[in-house]
Amino acid sequence: MATNGTCILAYSGGLDTSFCIPFIREKYGYEVETCMIDTGGFTADDFKRAADRAKQLGVKNPVVLDGKAEVFNRFVKFMLYGNVMRGGVYPLCVAAERVVQASMVAEYAVKRGAAAVAHGSTGAGNDQIRFDVAMNVLAPGLKMLSPVREHSLTRQQETDYLKKVGLEIPPKTTQYSINAGMWGVTIGGKETHDSATVVPDEVFEMAAKSNPAVKPRLLKVTFEKGQPVALDGEPLKPVALIERLNTLGFEYALGRGVHLGDTIVGIKGRVAFVAPAALMLIAAHRELEKLVLTKWQRFWKDHVSDFYGTMLHEGQPFDPALRDIEALLESSQGRVSGEVSITVKYGAFAVGGVSSPYSLMNAASGKYGEEFSLWSGADAAGFGKVLSIPSRLAAQAKGKV
Amino acid sequence: MATNGTCILAYSGGLDTSFCIPFIREKYGYEVETCMIDTGGFTADDFKRAADRAKQLGVKNPVVLDGKAEVFNRFVKFMLYGNVMRGGVYPLCVAAERVVQASMVAEYAVKRGAAAVAHGSTGAGNDQIRFDVAMNVLAPGLKMLSPVREHSLTRQQETDYLKKVGLEIPPKTTQYSINAGMWGVTIGGKETHDSATVVPDEVFEMAAKSNPAVKPRLLKVTFEKGQPVALDGEPLKPVALIERLNTLGFEYALGRGVHLGDTIVGIKGRVAFVAPAALMLIAAHRELEKLVLTKWQRFWKDHVSDFYGTMLHEGQPFDPALRDIEALLESSQGRVSGEVSITVKYGAFAVGGVSSPYSLMNAASGKYGEEFSLWSGADAAGFGKVLSIPSRLAAQAKGKV
Amino acid sequence: MATNGTCILAYSGGLDTSFCIPFIREKYGYEVETCMIDTGGFTADDFKRAADRAKQLGVKNPVVLDGKAEVFNRFVKFMLYGNVMRGGVYPLCVAAERVVQASMVAEYAVKRGAAAVAHGSTGAGNDQIRFDVAMNVLAPGLKMLSPVREHSLTRQQETDYLKKVGLEIPPKTTQYSINAGMWGVTIGGKETHDSATVVPDEVFEMAAKSNPAVKPRLLKVTFEKGQPVALDGEPLKPVALIERLNTLGFEYALGRGVHLGDTIVGIKGRVAFVAPAALMLIAAHRELEKLVLTKWQRFWKDHVSDFYGTMLHEGQPFDPALRDIEALLESSQGRVSGEVSITVKYGAFAVGGVSSPYSLMNAASGKYGEEFSLWSGADAAGFGKVLSIPSRLAAQAKGKV
Amino acid sequence: MATNGTCILAYSGGLDTSFCIPFIREKYGYEVETCMIDTGGFTADDFKRAADRAKQLGVKNPVVLDGKAEVFNRFVKFMLYGNVMRGGVYPLCVAAERVVQASMVAEYAVKRGAAAVAHGSTGAGNDQIRFDVAMNVLAPGLKMLSPVREHSLTRQQETDYLKKVGLEIPPKTTQYSINAGMWGVTIGGKETHDSATVVPDEVFEMAAKSNPAVKPRLLKVTFEKGQPVALDGEPLKPVALIERLNTLGFEYALGRGVHLGDTIVGIKGRVAFVAPAALMLIAAHRELEKLVLTKWQRFWKDHVSDFYGTMLHEGQPFDPALRDIEALLESSQGRVSGEVSITVKYGAFAVGGVSSPYSLMNAASGKYGEEFSLWSGADAAGFGKVLSIPSRLAAQAKGKV
Repeated sequence: MATNGTCILAYSGGLDTSFCIPFIREKYGYEVETCMIDTGGFTADDFKRAADRAKQLGVKNPVVLDGKAEVFNRFVKFMLYGNVMRGGVYPLCVAAERVVQASMVAEYAVKRGAAAVAHGSTGAGNDQIRFDVAMNVLAPGLKMLSPVREHSLTRQQETDYLKKVGLEIPPKTTQYSINAGMWGVTIGGKETHDSATVVPDEVFEMAAKSNPAVKPRLLKVTFEKGQPVALDGEPLKPVALIERLNTLGFEYALGRGVHLGDTIVGIKGRVAFVAPAALMLIAAHRELEKLVLTKWQRFWKDHVSDFYGTMLHEGQPFDPALRDIEALLESSQGRVSGEVSITVKYGAFAVGGVSSPYSLMNAASGKYGEEFSLWSGADAAGFGKVLSIPSRLAAQAKGKV
Repeated sequence: MATNGTCILAYSGGLDTSFCIPFIREKYGYEVETCMIDTGGFTADDFKRAADRAKQLGVKNPVVLDGKAEVFNRFVKFMLYGNVMRGGVYPLCVAAERVVQASMVAEYAVKRGAAAVAHGSTGAGNDQIRFDVAMNVLAPGLKMLSPVREHSLTRQQETDYLKKVGLEIPPKTTQYSINAGMWGVTIGGKETHDSATVVPDEVFEMAAKSNPAVKPRLLKVTFEKGQPVALDGEPLKPVALIERLNTLGFEYALGRGVHLGDTIVGIKGRVAFVAPAALMLIAAHRELEKLVLTKWQRFWKDHVSDFYGTMLHEGQPFDPALRDIEALLESSQGRVSGEVSITVKYGAFAVGGVSSPYSLMNAASGKYGEEFSLWSGADAAGFGKVLSIPSRLAAQAKGKV
Repeated sequence: MATNGTCILAYSGGLDTSFCIPFIREKYGYEVETCMIDTGGFTADDFKRAADRAKQLGVKNPVVLDGKAEVFNRFVKFMLYGNVMRGGVYPLCVAAERVVQASMVAEYAVKRGAAAVAHGSTGAGNDQIRFDVAMNVLAPGLKMLSPVREHSLTRQQETDYLKKVGLEIPPKTTQYSINAGMWGVTIGGKETHDSATVVPDEVFEMAAKSNPAVKPRLLKVTFEKGQPVALDGEPLKPVALIERLNTLGFEYALGRGVHLGDTIVGIKGRVAFVAPAALMLIAAHRELEKLVLTKWQRFWKDHVSDFYGTMLHEGQPFDPALRDIEALLESSQGRVSGEVSITVKYGAFAVGGVSSPYSLMNAASGKYGEEFSLWSGADAAGFGKVLSIPSRLAAQAKGKV
Repeated sequence: MATNGTCILAYSGGLDTSFCIPFIREKYGYEVETCMIDTGGFTADDFKRAADRAKQLGVKNPVVLDGKAEVFNRFVKFMLYGNVMRGGVYPLCVAAERVVQASMVAEYAVKRGAAAVAHGSTGAGNDQIRFDVAMNVLAPGLKMLSPVREHSLTRQQETDYLKKVGLEIPPKTTQYSINAGMWGVTIGGKETHDSATVVPDEVFEMAAKSNPAVKPRLLKVTFEKGQPVALDGEPLKPVALIERLNTLGFEYALGRGVHLGDTIVGIKGRVAFVAPAALMLIAAHRELEKLVLTKWQRFWKDHVSDFYGTMLHEGQPFDPALRDIEALLESSQGRVSGEVSITVKYGAFAVGGVSSPYSLMNAASGKYGEEFSLWSGADAAGFGKVLSIPSRLAAQAKGKV
């Protein structure tokens, strides 16, 4: 039957991608192989269960690749350099992971010599576009399949089909979809569908259990050229440090929020999230930058990073414009080294203080509010006078007529 | 003695400006009149005490002008439209107030036919430049005096001089300077001088006393074209609404933070602040915007607002570029009407939900995650394909060589 | 047959849209009415000929609407305010006209109570998207047809079909397509398909005949709040002034160029153009702005205008972000009034001089190179010293480690 | 007398800096050494004459350093990458040269162990600030002198003083000041002081003699990663290539223009210039970029480059923000390699065509106006539909209320 060659399926173990295994085999005539990418937030057990289900559906050798370092090095690192938060609140949890999943599957498919590559997204959300773009760009010679979208299938239709081929999927017992990853957990469903409804604490607890009995404490994060390299003095790789901070942040009920934003297809969407590591690291990193960067460094970083986040969100991280922006960001981090303290209590954290060998708040220069050796009162007066010239001329010109 | 005519002094009742009254009279030969501007955060008693001191120093008729509506209408309104927070955290509390004080004093001096205008700033901080620019632009024909800066005087020298002319100023009993205004209270001193030091809760309590016994509650803020017009359904003028929110926020210990940023003269400065109304209104307004504005509206608003905040911070609000940006912001607010709920508990607040007659998250359009009447799966696939073309061509071009 | 109601066709009189008349009638079952929009560059004869052809194809009452003022007031005005030139050279000739054509047809269809609206674009170029977006946004309730694209038809197939229904279209005798409009003439074909090939003078002459015998002369353009209002002292409406300048510019062989740019669908395209009025007005307007606007006004105008041009080019002028940008641009033009001289000779023009009642180059302020009453040498030295502080601190911080 | 140590004077051989030699010796008590920087536009004879004059004024060993490669590598290269033209017309001729002069003198002074460093600028123009900032940043430990500014001296006073110390300077015979450098020649005086006056051809001829008898020709410039590396196939170093293009361009009367812009001290200034190499290279480079970069690469390059040019113009190239922008620009040039033809005739040039191994205008992809293998008509229709969704929703939301 599978006369068309091999199709590599981006597989998650969920309903949509499970359904695709037999459906692609039957309707499209490909041999189906699955490829799962670990981008954090899941346990070994989760992967085992997913692989077992793939095998049950006839996949001989379900592949799992570790994409966590890839997520950090290709995107999370730059989102941290850029302090990227969508709409001022949301640390863009899903996009980087999905793009890495799509990219690694596409690259695997090319390497594997496959004839096709497939994803299980519907035609409604963001992920379809992220998969489309990555697969089109990285595997342009391969046929790209999106069976659920192409046949406009509902969850019920997929469940029925799987039942027919012998796999019983238990009905969904929750009204929520949870997506866990390295840079945070997102929750959609029920309250998120109506912009006016408050998302209750229990929903956040479903995604990440907290412990109200925890005691306040002070954390220390060490940064080296913009990257977090140690927690409370203990050197850690970035991915491990992020995992550690998430575990701690879940316990303290930190990093919870709701974001309303623009989906790639142009409509509005709303999502709840729990992302303590992302929010703490961004807040800490941003404050450290304020100590060591000039105002114009921060100005341009902020402006290009906002665009960077938008393009990543929209599944277009392959535009070389993003490489150029990454070069700017990388350059800006040369002096972003130092230590940041974070005060943490149940339900709230705050940046405490920052220090850096590259501090521009030079103790030797005196302190704010007193005169400095760097300039005199007369210098400041001259500065104020010259600074006012354009507005002064504009006011005169306007008044003259 | 006062043969040079009248000098209008921007007066606050503090040491520097009190000192200026007799000093300008003696050393510069002007008749001194004081002008105080009420920009919020002070009581009638505070103004009475300041006026009494001016009278004691020989000012016949100390003038107090109400600048609160001016602060809101000229700047706070636009900072809210633009969701302006310096460095991602600080709602720019002082700049708008200081600029309005400087402007109203300069305009008063011109109207009054004065020969000179004066401010009491030292040569070290931001305020001198804000006064310089406003006075240069709005009172270009008047002599501008800044005695403390011109003579590089210390607090001790000023105190000694005042003692000689018969005014005993009690020594400072605190290491902190507190500046209260409509858009927030700022605190400088001790811990803020070292970037690494955590500012303790007691310091924030000095600026605004909280009550840990308060109960969690839900607030509703109504916006009309970007401006807050009602609180929990009760119509209020913006200034009154802001005052109400600050009183409530102080009690709940909300809106506290520390900001490290660039002073106008180019060095770094650090400041603690308590600004509950500003932070709640910005968070609420921003979320409402996300419901009703397109992504490109928000993109450009954000970019120009960041610059707007910088220019206002730096005392250059008279550049006509800011009028142009205000026009953009004003245009963007046409549909920013609706209601925002805010969950409030001791120490933390969060935006709950938003609703608007102009909502772009149209219930009728279906819901995120399912297919819409607005497009089909095939449309989305076409969109994804076309969207990937530039990156696909770039990848091919690069690979070819 | 035409049981589906009426379809309003955006009609130009060319092959594609002529073909659509009988084809829509036959294959889609609509009564077809044509609507032509005059956006400049065509004579009454041209419209007559097109209407005759429509009648010949069975349209009872071919409609022609005047869109020239619409083109100016909705877009050209703002492109001039913004000095919009794509890629630094091309005055965006086609987009505004096409968008106005699409918009007026869509609005006419809605007003007319039609059931459908149609355009004749292929699936290859920019125009399809401009028609799609305008018709989707302005006539969302109507069925939208694009027969040539939907059936992937070639010119040959269209010609054959028309022959069958009785209309003989003469074969194309040129390798070029010329598109004339108010803001310029564009030429595609032959040399433009290869980026390396020089477009010869004869091709430009095809689009607009010049007269090498013309004598050098000086033009004067008067602007009022950013709009051109008089030529050599003679008051003219903007559209008439633009037509006059084009006629003159064609004779002097001005405004010729070649532009290589990004099409909406993501590939590169190249086009030759003759746009003397646009290029002269933009150059003149820009120089006048430099006399009356502050540097930050120009900075932000430039940045948002670049985006404005991109969105208009891409057929997305309905995004409310463009209304916001227009508000900024409108605000910036308040003082852009004055006179600009342009030196003109065969093959080249240059801005000669600019004057304005709002000039910021105030003669009274002294002249550049000598000291001014606005500041002293000591003021400038203070300014220079304070200006250098951030870089000085950054250099020290870097050196310290 | 010279008990204060050695002062290194940034020397040009003109009146101001010649005057400074004896004046600094007498009034400031330093031993004076001169340092001239060759940044192009001058002959060996010019330098010889200047050195002789310094010797005549008592300088033992006048130093001349070659700064041409420095000008190209530190700034001109990036201005070319960024296609920087101030106000859309002026290639920023003077700033890069002046900053390099100031920087090399400051660095030389530090290396030489001097006690002071001096420049001869008045308090009126741009150059004083460029010297101030460079000397403050690069030689912060040295005393900085600006005698002409500090004593508000006129040319007459300087001439009189020099006469007294035995140097007779002939009176100026022209109303113009000409400044020659690698990236162009600037001319100030007479007509440039009034914005309305046309600068006549004879003034440009004074700066660079042309030859109306030259024949039209075609030039070929080869770029490698954004840098010009060959002219008509002959490999040349960038500085030599620029000199060659200037010589040719002078003959053809190319690159002439007048620019009205903002001086650093906030007033307007006007300057005539002749910069054929700069204008041809920027036009050629920009067109090549349009062939190989994506639209978003060009968008962000343009925006950050505009700021880059402003900061360089204003003498602030030491802000690390410019290093970050340079990193973005450098990254963007990776594929900017290829060949550009330029048609040249007396009085006008135009880019003819561009080719590159990295061309995104892929012949294999088909040609604009016909359908492509990259997408189908249905894909484009889907793209157009999805693209219109935000504006469609906004139009509906607005209409609903």
